[in-house]
Amino acid sequence: MKSYFRKIIENMTGYIPGEQTGEKGVVKLNTNENPYPPSPRVLEQIRARLSERELALYPPPLSDPLRVVAQKTYGIPADWILVGNGSDELLNLIFRVFLDKEDRVLYPYPTYTLYRTLALLQEAHYQEIPFEENYQLLPEELVQGEAKLKIICNPNSPTGTVVSISEVEKVLAASACPVVVDEAYVDFAEENCLSLLKKYPNLLILRTLSKSFALAGARVGFLFAWPEMTQGIIKAKDSYNVGIMPQIAAQAALEDIEYTRARVEQIKKTRSWFSSELAKMGFVVYPSQANFVWVQLPGSSLGFLYQGLKERNILVRYFSEWPDALRITIGREEDMKLLLEEMLEILK
Amino acid sequence: MKSYFRKIIENMTGYIPGEQTGEKGVVKLNTNENPYPPSPRVLEQIRARLSERELALYPPPLSDPLRVVAQKTYGIPADWILVGNGSDELLNLIFRVFLDKEDRVLYPYPTYTLYRTLALLQEAHYQEIPFEENYQLLPEELVQGEAKLKIICNPNSPTGTVVSISEVEKVLAASACPVVVDEAYVDFAEENCLSLLKKYPNLLILRTLSKSFALAGARVGFLFAWPEMTQGIIKAKDSYNVGIMPQIAAQAALEDIEYTRARVEQIKKTRSWFSSELAKMGFVVYPSQANFVWVQLPGSSLGFLYQGLKERNILVRYFSEWPDALRITIGREEDMKLLLEEMLEILK
Repeated sequence: MKSYFRKIIENMTGYIPGEQTGEKGVVKLNTNENPYPPSPRVLEQIRARLSERELALYPPPLSDPLRVVAQKTYGIPADWILVGNGSDELLNLIFRVFLDKEDRVLYPYPTYTLYRTLALLQEAHYQEIPFEENYQLLPEELVQGEAKLKIICNPNSPTGTVVSISEVEKVLAASACPVVVDEAYVDFAEENCLSLLKKYPNLLILRTLSKSFALAGARVGFLFAWPEMTQGIIKAKDSYNVGIMPQIAAQAALEDIEYTRARVEQIKKTRSWFSSELAKMGFVVYPSQANFVWVQLPGSSLGFLYQGLKERNILVRYFSEWPDALRITIGREEDMKLLLEEMLEILK
Repeated sequence: MKSYFRKIIENMTGYIPGEQTGEKGVVKLNTNENPYPPSPRVLEQIRARLSERELALYPPPLSDPLRVVAQKTYGIPADWILVGNGSDELLNLIFRVFLDKEDRVLYPYPTYTLYRTLALLQEAHYQEIPFEENYQLLPEELVQGEAKLKIICNPNSPTGTVVSISEVEKVLAASACPVVVDEAYVDFAEENCLSLLKKYPNLLILRTLSKSFALAGARVGFLFAWPEMTQGIIKAKDSYNVGIMPQIAAQAALEDIEYTRARVEQIKKTRSWFSSELAKMGFVVYPSQANFVWVQLPGSSLGFLYQGLKERNILVRYFSEWPDALRITIGREEDMKLLLEEMLEILK
């Protein structure tokens, strides 16, 4: 069959997400989902509040009732908030509105490989600049480089590491372009960049309800930015990008944020214990402020370990791009104990 | 504030959807929603089947369980089906994967103005070719014209009119590019283009659950096309574009299609009666096979009528691009009776 696609589409492979499985008995530690359920208020509200009339009508185009709740939760005015069909949609829109063909986007490396896919879609040049100091300092080339867009995933995936707010601020101050701080995992970290928002009109902060709020299935993300920014991005978004059900689910989750905070604390505790167990086994474990850890075994490729665990019904994330490492989501304590046992079996 | 946006974004206005209001007492006949609720099975299934575990996990990336149900409903293999976050997302993806900067897209005019917005976003040339014969024949220039993409909205919005399947087939046979048939309203029509799919690898058929299935709030659309087509488009789509809740809602609706068919028949009956009432009042009413009618009053601009109805809490659709016409959604019979009374009041 003749190809009708743009050359760039024909030649690219899409982003490959981690394996998804609904299979029972599989311990899923590969795509950074939350091992705990979302706030019980979510299902309660969906059951009690969702009406047939709301299903029949188009949803609020800018998710206004949800924005009002988010304004209270985050202390940011509603018109500084854009709600997306997951933060992936917001990233997609950001690449689309700021990057013309041949424009340049900069980000530290290694990081979320979706950025590369989105750059390819725009036929933009992507420059992937290695982190300094075990992923904890931003490279000078990122700070000073000329570009139309810069992105910092903080905490970073797949490494789980963070750079300090003052590092991020250096980039904001030195850059004549928008700077995205992708804070998908920030609820598991010590600090975040919200306090920089008023000072820097070129700052765009991304959040998601998929990780800390345990709502990956609902598809809700937030962009926090100046109204001039959100208004421009709205021009490119689908009119009704977030359905009524995720709008209700997200409101319920934000209204019960204490629940989420308690679960986040539990995950941080498990992360700390699990990291030290891995270190005892001889793994290099990077200091994580996310709900996963990035581990290496000096001198080893880790494909065999990924494969062995998979055969034992435990999924962790192996990227062919980084064969010397694995990214392991922090699950419940019992999941991590089982994982450690199976790892010992495989490695002995 | 300095603009960071691409020039095309800076200069464009986004697509402007019809007014959305949740206000009680407003009769909403402006965005072609269904006046009846969706199948009761939808809310039942959301309440009974949706689990906290499903909310916490990423949803099936290609909506596979839903595709299996759709395969049965439409008699089309699952890998010929792509599920979207509304058919708007699918349109957006189609423009993105087929149209390079400066490429040409053709469609008859007047039609869904989103096509123009999507062409602008790609910096593609859009050529809007007037329909022939009161919107019931396709212009020869559309059939024969050179382009990278052609689109036929059938039944057409805002006119409600249809062109015959053989007209569509002429375009498919004569075109060396993909041809989208946007069948958003086809469940209210006499025939559809599904039977052409096997014969034409350049055919893409769009459907939505927003109109006939009364699920505008859920955001679900389908693309039917050859697997080579769906596979290419998947490269550009967000990994998890449809959440678990709309997937469940859509499955439930398709499994109870008899319910939808009965409501569609009622709307068609109301459409027929309402059209003849309008004709008696002196309106030109185009023959509609959609859930709305397109009306003109010879010699009159109709902004005053739109405005007068709005003051009486009835919303119909007025497009500044076509000031001599109104597009009126078919609601319940009692809504339409009220509308007729108020129109008589305003016009007397």
